[in-house]
Amino acid sequence: MKFNPPKKLSEIAELLGLELDGDPDFQVTGINEIHMVEQGDITFVDHPKYYKKALSSAASVVIINQKVERPKGKHLLFSDEPFTAYNSLSKKFRPFQSSARHISDSADIGEGTIIQPGGFIGNHVKIGKNCLIHANVSIYDHSVIGDETIIHSGAVIGGDAFYYKKEAAGYTKMHSTGRAIIGNRVEIGCGTTIDKGVSGDTTVGDGSKLDNMVHVGHDTQIGKNCLFAGQVGIAGVVIVEDDVILWGQVGVQKDLRIGKGAVVLGQSGIGKDLEPNKTYFGSPTRDAREKMKELALIKKLPEIIVELRNK
Amino acid sequence: MKFNPPKKLSEIAELLGLELDGDPDFQVTGINEIHMVEQGDITFVDHPKYYKKALSSAASVVIINQKVERPKGKHLLFSDEPFTAYNSLSKKFRPFQSSARHISDSADIGEGTIIQPGGFIGNHVKIGKNCLIHANVSIYDHSVIGDETIIHSGAVIGGDAFYYKKEAAGYTKMHSTGRAIIGNRVEIGCGTTIDKGVSGDTTVGDGSKLDNMVHVGHDTQIGKNCLFAGQVGIAGVVIVEDDVILWGQVGVQKDLRIGKGAVVLGQSGIGKDLEPNKTYFGSPTRDAREKMKELALIKKLPEIIVELRNK
Amino acid sequence: MKFNPPKKLSEIAELLGLELDGDPDFQVTGINEIHMVEQGDITFVDHPKYYKKALSSAASVVIINQKVERPKGKHLLFSDEPFTAYNSLSKKFRPFQSSARHISDSADIGEGTIIQPGGFIGNHVKIGKNCLIHANVSIYDHSVIGDETIIHSGAVIGGDAFYYKKEAAGYTKMHSTGRAIIGNRVEIGCGTTIDKGVSGDTTVGDGSKLDNMVHVGHDTQIGKNCLFAGQVGIAGVVIVEDDVILWGQVGVQKDLRIGKGAVVLGQSGIGKDLEPNKTYFGSPTRDAREKMKELALIKKLPEIIVELRNK
Repeated sequence: MKFNPPKKLSEIAELLGLELDGDPDFQVTGINEIHMVEQGDITFVDHPKYYKKALSSAASVVIINQKVERPKGKHLLFSDEPFTAYNSLSKKFRPFQSSARHISDSADIGEGTIIQPGGFIGNHVKIGKNCLIHANVSIYDHSVIGDETIIHSGAVIGGDAFYYKKEAAGYTKMHSTGRAIIGNRVEIGCGTTIDKGVSGDTTVGDGSKLDNMVHVGHDTQIGKNCLFAGQVGIAGVVIVEDDVILWGQVGVQKDLRIGKGAVVLGQSGIGKDLEPNKTYFGSPTRDAREKMKELALIKKLPEIIVELRNK
Repeated sequence: MKFNPPKKLSEIAELLGLELDGDPDFQVTGINEIHMVEQGDITFVDHPKYYKKALSSAASVVIINQKVERPKGKHLLFSDEPFTAYNSLSKKFRPFQSSARHISDSADIGEGTIIQPGGFIGNHVKIGKNCLIHANVSIYDHSVIGDETIIHSGAVIGGDAFYYKKEAAGYTKMHSTGRAIIGNRVEIGCGTTIDKGVSGDTTVGDGSKLDNMVHVGHDTQIGKNCLFAGQVGIAGVVIVEDDVILWGQVGVQKDLRIGKGAVVLGQSGIGKDLEPNKTYFGSPTRDAREKMKELALIKKLPEIIVELRNK
Repeated sequence: MKFNPPKKLSEIAELLGLELDGDPDFQVTGINEIHMVEQGDITFVDHPKYYKKALSSAASVVIINQKVERPKGKHLLFSDEPFTAYNSLSKKFRPFQSSARHISDSADIGEGTIIQPGGFIGNHVKIGKNCLIHANVSIYDHSVIGDETIIHSGAVIGGDAFYYKKEAAGYTKMHSTGRAIIGNRVEIGCGTTIDKGVSGDTTVGDGSKLDNMVHVGHDTQIGKNCLFAGQVGIAGVVIVEDDVILWGQVGVQKDLRIGKGAVVLGQSGIGKDLEPNKTYFGSPTRDAREKMKELALIKKLPEIIVELRNK
C-alpha cells in the first residue's frame, strides 16, 4: 500500500509509540512486506533469520525487534512486536469501511458498464468501460477492473488474504492492504474468488479467462491470455506467465512460477516452478509424457514381477 | 437456439452481409453447432478438417469459408470468418438483456414457489410449482426449472459457457444462446454452478441431487436420480446417464459418457467413457478393484524388490 | 433438535397416527439420529440390522417397523415407515419459514457487528459482537455465530444436509433440523459453505480459519485453531480435533476422525482416521514421508527393472 500523500516518519513513530533511529523528517511512501517492498516504504522483520534480508531490502524504514546497526540510508523503528506494529499501521491507514448500499458512492464506474441486481461494489472501486457485472457479484473496496471485462454471478473480487501469524494463543490475522487488479477483456466465472494482496496487489492480466469456482490466492500475478478451467486453486504469491493453460481442479502451491505457455492437465498438483511451453500432469506434477509412461509401467507391474520371479 | 418464428434465409444473409448459394426464401428454424444441429438450422464451419462433417450434418444452412459444391437440400453462406458471422447471429437474436430488478417481469414463477431474499431471476426464466429458491441464488435469463426443486444459496443457474475461439490476438468469446434446464424434484447445493449450453441446452434430470460447489459445464446432460457429492466438476458436453453416483471432488473431462448406475469414488478423474453399473477409482479413473490391487502392490514394492534382488 | 418445552409422547403418537407401547405421559425432549441421540429423545430405526443399536441407544423413544419386546425405561412407536414418521416430526416441529427481508426480525445481532449489503440473515439466527459479515453472505435459520468472527462474501452458513434415503422411486430428502454453530474469532472465506446438522449440529471451534470455497458437510465438528486452505472438502459426520491443518483441495470422507495437530498436504484424500501430530499426503492418504519415499521409488522403477532383468 502506498500513502497518498507520503507521511513523515516522526508521525508514524509517534503513532506506534516506537523509538526511532533515523531521520524524523523522512517522507515514508508506503508499507509492504520484505519480498515486495520498494524504496521509500516501511517493512517489518521479527525473526533473526530474516534480519539481513530486511536490512538489505529496498525498504527505507524497517520495524525490527532488536537493536542493530543502522544501514546507511535506512531508518529503524524498534518494537518488541514488529508484526503487531506493522498491522496497526495497516489498519490505521487502510481501515475497513462499511457500506450502507450495494454500490458505494466512491465507486468509479465506466461508461457502458452494466451492474446487474445484487452486485456489491465497495468503496473506491474502479470499473472500466463496457463491463458486465452479473447478479450477486461482490467487489471489495479498492479493487480495480479494466474495460470490457465480464464477471459472473457469485464471484468475489478482492476478498482478504488468507494470511495469519501463528502465536501461542492462536492465529492472528494480518490486515490486508493490497488490492485485486483485473485487466481488460478478462472473464471471471461464476463463484470464482480472487483475493487481494496482503500489502501488494493480486493481478489478472488482459484477456485471461477464468472458469467457475477458480480460487486465486493473495499476491498472485496472472499474465495475459491465460485460461483456467473450473475449480482450479492457486495459493498465494504465485507468478503465472502469459498464455498458461490450467485444466480443471489443478492445484498450485504458493511461492512459485509457471512459465509462459505451460499447459497443466486436470487435477494436477503443482509444487515447484514449471518451465515454459511444456505439458505437465500428476500430483505432484511431472512432465506429462513421463507421467503417462510411468502410469503405463505401473499397470504392467504385475506381469513384470511374474516375469522376474520366473527368470 | 430456435427462432420463433423462423427467419427467411435472405434476411439472415443480408444481416450478415454474406453471399448466399441457395434458396433465399428458405425458412431458417434456428442456429446450432455441428454436433447438435437439426434440420432447418444454420451451423458454421471454418476448418477444412470439418467441412465434410458440416456439409453432411443435419444443418440446412452452412456458413463456410470456402466455395464448395452445394449439397442437395442445403444452402450455403460464404464468409471469411464463419465463427464471427455465427457469433453475430447469436448476439443479434439472443442479445444480453440487463435487468433493473431482482425478479424480472418476464419471469414465470409457479404457484407455491418461494423466492428468498436476494434471489436474482432473469428475463424469460420459468420456474415450476412448489420450488424453494434460497437467498442470493442467481438464475440467468431463459433458464427453466421444474416443480418441487430446491436451489440453495449462492448457486448460479445458466452462467455462460466457458467457450472461446483461440485467435492470434487472444481468446474470442463464443456468445452462448443455449439454456440451463433443471428437472423436477432436483436439489442443487450451495454455491453450485450450472452453465447454459453454447447453443443447445445443459440439462439436469428429475430427482437428481447435487451437493455444494458442484460445477456443471455447458451442454452437459445429467440423467435422472443422479447423486453428485461436494465439489464435483464436470467439463462441457458430458452425458451422465441415470442413477450415476459421483463422490466428492471427482473431475470429469469433456465429451464423454458415464453409463447408467456407474459409481465413481472420491477425487477420481474421468478421462474416458465409463461403463454402466461399475465402480471406478483413481486419476485417471480405473475399475475400483483393479486400482485398489494396484495400490496394494505399490505398497509392497520395496519388499518385492528386495526379494527379487536376493533371488 | 430439542423441543422447547418438551412434548407429551401421546401428543406425538397422535400426530403421527402411530400405535404406542409405553407411557403416554412421557415427556419427549427432542429428536435425533441413533448415533447422536440423548436420553429423553426420540430416534427411529427401519432396518433389522440396526434394531439392537436403536433399542440399546440413549433414546427414550424408538420409532420402529416391527413389534419387539419393549426394553425397560423405553417407549416404542410402531410405524411401517419409521423414516417417513421421523421426517414428518422434523417438518412439523422445525418447518421451513420463508423470509420477507434480508435480515429477519427474529435474528439477534450483537453490538458492533457489521452486516454488509446483500447479507441474508435468517430467522432465529444469533450473531455475537463485533463480527463482520461481508456482502452477499447467506446465513440460514437457527445458525449461531460467536464474537469477532469474519464471514466473507458468498459464504453460506447452515445450508441443508446432503442426506437422502434411497427408495424405489428415487431419493427422499431427510428434512434437516440441526444447526451450524460457528465459534469466536473464526474466519470463513469467500464462497465457503458450512451445512447444518441433520438433527444435531455442525460446529466450527474458536479461532479456526477457513479459506475460500471450503465445503463442510453436515454434523462435522471442527476443533479450535484449525486452518483449512482453499477448496478443502469435508463430507458429513467428521470430527476434526484442535490445531489440524488441511492444505488446499484436501478431501475428507465421512464418519472419521482427524487427530489433534495433524497436517495434511494439498490434494490428499482422507479415507480413514488420522493420528495426532503426524503429516499425511496422498489419495488415499499415507504418512507423508512414506508416500514421498514411494513416489521416489516409482520414479526409479524403470532402472530397477533393467537392473533386475540384467541380474
